[in-house]
Amino acid sequence: MRIVVNGHPREARAVQWEDDAVLAVDQRMLPDRVALARLETVDAVADAIRTMIVRGAPTIGATAAYGMALAAIAGEDLAASRAKLAASRPTARDLFAALAHMDLALAHGRDPLAAASGYADDVVARCVAIGEHGLDAIPDGARVLTHCHAGALAAVDVGTALAPIRLAHASGRHVFAWVDETRPRLQGRITAWELAGEGIPHALIADNAAGHFMARGEVDVVIVGADRIAANGDVANKIGTYTKAVLAQRHGIPFYVAAPRTTFDAATRTGADIPIEERDAGELGGGTARNPAFDVTPAGLVTGYVTEAGILRPEDLKRSTGLAAAWTREP
Amino acid sequence: MRIVVNGHPREARAVQWEDDAVLAVDQRMLPDRVALARLETVDAVADAIRTMIVRGAPTIGATAAYGMALAAIAGEDLAASRAKLAASRPTARDLFAALAHMDLALAHGRDPLAAASGYADDVVARCVAIGEHGLDAIPDGARVLTHCHAGALAAVDVGTALAPIRLAHASGRHVFAWVDETRPRLQGRITAWELAGEGIPHALIADNAAGHFMARGEVDVVIVGADRIAANGDVANKIGTYTKAVLAQRHGIPFYVAAPRTTFDAATRTGADIPIEERDAGELGGGTARNPAFDVTPAGLVTGYVTEAGILRPEDLKRSTGLAAAWTREP
Repeated sequence: MRIVVNGHPREARAVQWEDDAVLAVDQRMLPDRVALARLETVDAVADAIRTMIVRGAPTIGATAAYGMALAAIAGEDLAASRAKLAASRPTARDLFAALAHMDLALAHGRDPLAAASGYADDVVARCVAIGEHGLDAIPDGARVLTHCHAGALAAVDVGTALAPIRLAHASGRHVFAWVDETRPRLQGRITAWELAGEGIPHALIADNAAGHFMARGEVDVVIVGADRIAANGDVANKIGTYTKAVLAQRHGIPFYVAAPRTTFDAATRTGADIPIEERDAGELGGGTARNPAFDVTPAGLVTGYVTEAGILRPEDLKRSTGLAAAWTREP
Repeated sequence: MRIVVNGHPREARAVQWEDDAVLAVDQRMLPDRVALARLETVDAVADAIRTMIVRGAPTIGATAAYGMALAAIAGEDLAASRAKLAASRPTARDLFAALAHMDLALAHGRDPLAAASGYADDVVARCVAIGEHGLDAIPDGARVLTHCHAGALAAVDVGTALAPIRLAHASGRHVFAWVDETRPRLQGRITAWELAGEGIPHALIADNAAGHFMARGEVDVVIVGADRIAANGDVANKIGTYTKAVLAQRHGIPFYVAAPRTTFDAATRTGADIPIEERDAGELGGGTARNPAFDVTPAGLVTGYVTEAGILRPEDLKRSTGLAAAWTREP
């Protein structure tokens, strides 16, 4: 992704290895201030995850992998380093997947940095594949609406929902992005910042305004990310996603969910089985409030799932006993 | 409405006459700070309208009427006073209706204060009648969702969309209000503040969350206000209203629009004829943004219009040549 730090444009991933250290885009002040954090110790890496210098499950995973590489290269106690990293954000599934990847690599004597970079590269490769498959959903001139932030900062680089938009733009197609503000946490501002960095035409809108622009025929396709996809295709994603899916159906607008296979959870039968986190009322300014962080979009509202293995249709999931069979479609 | 000023609870209207002056609830710092503004001159009244100490078209109208009473009682130049008030918020239709009302009253030698109070009382009486008719839409135990602020502060007292909720609560029914935050201007916070003042159970939610609670079966009815209702029943109201109407239809939830007859505009054929104001991108935090302030909800999504003359159905409007015939239903 292209960023500008202290007036200097450069290419950067959300997290990467540079000059014997872990270099991360500091996401805490975005979009107001862009800074890079140089992390030279496992403690610094664990702190960066805990204090949300890095955010987004795939980025957190890659950061932890680099943290283990730092520890191994410095000859530190690997078990203690692993424990520090594992305690940094205990709920992010990718964090543990990354640590397990590094366990295996180090146990087999692989080069630590190659193992960590391989993990990060794999995340990016999946995003690129999602973007390539998603191109089929974005005709030239398309006006694409997205919700929340499913971009490069969350997924090392490229992103999930933003991947097809980036690739369409990079391939010379005309593409315009409607960016939901995404209350209460306003992640749409980060999405808008990423798009601005790539020079992709876009407009930030209040979550309330998406229906208005759909009714006027100014939205051609919706692409969102996902936090978890149940075996029946129901999608848990940022609160407000369901509303956009209902509006899209009313207006005959295709609704796509972009996510890597790791987001599909065969152990969760339907969306009703996905617990919905309720967050603090303070995010709404206090008072008496209810603040669910996610909602569930039923599979019936989903046109397709844009994965690294191609675009799956809800029927592909229903026809079989869930994901296992669907994944046999993978090349 | 019940408010607490400097720790002292009291009854107050958004604007009223008290001790030879106009007393207005200062809406600028709400809900963080509650204060009353005492306006003793026409200039002070015009400033109060311009600086948004008072807000909401009916409240602005009543404030202007009291301003003319102040001028008449003080023996000031009526034409100059009228011009000052007319220039304070040039787009609010109620402002000119109120000034015309005072023109007529003063030309006929009516008592200025009685004329102004009569205007304000009439606004409140319409709201009370809306509330009484709206009770039919709120069964005991109802969980009512509302959008934006259509409460007492905007309509001298009682409000439009909030009127049935207030009256249901006052009559001993159990009623719970879901309050949309209403980005970008967050008018839901004012609604929540009014409900808290009346002791009405409620919860503020992100606009994104309404669909989630509807899908869970936790919303029984939606009641919103209106900025303008076209002859065919299409409703222009705060951005996001359309989205709630679409969601309500999907979930079989009744969707009511509460508004006095003055909001129906027989001269506007359909919603497509209503111009939609686009406001500054700064309300969304800057950057490249689109910010429509209103949207149009087609009549087909409206269960009923709660007016001071009863609840009208969309068929009532369609069956005739618009409003004129519908209004003959008035007792």
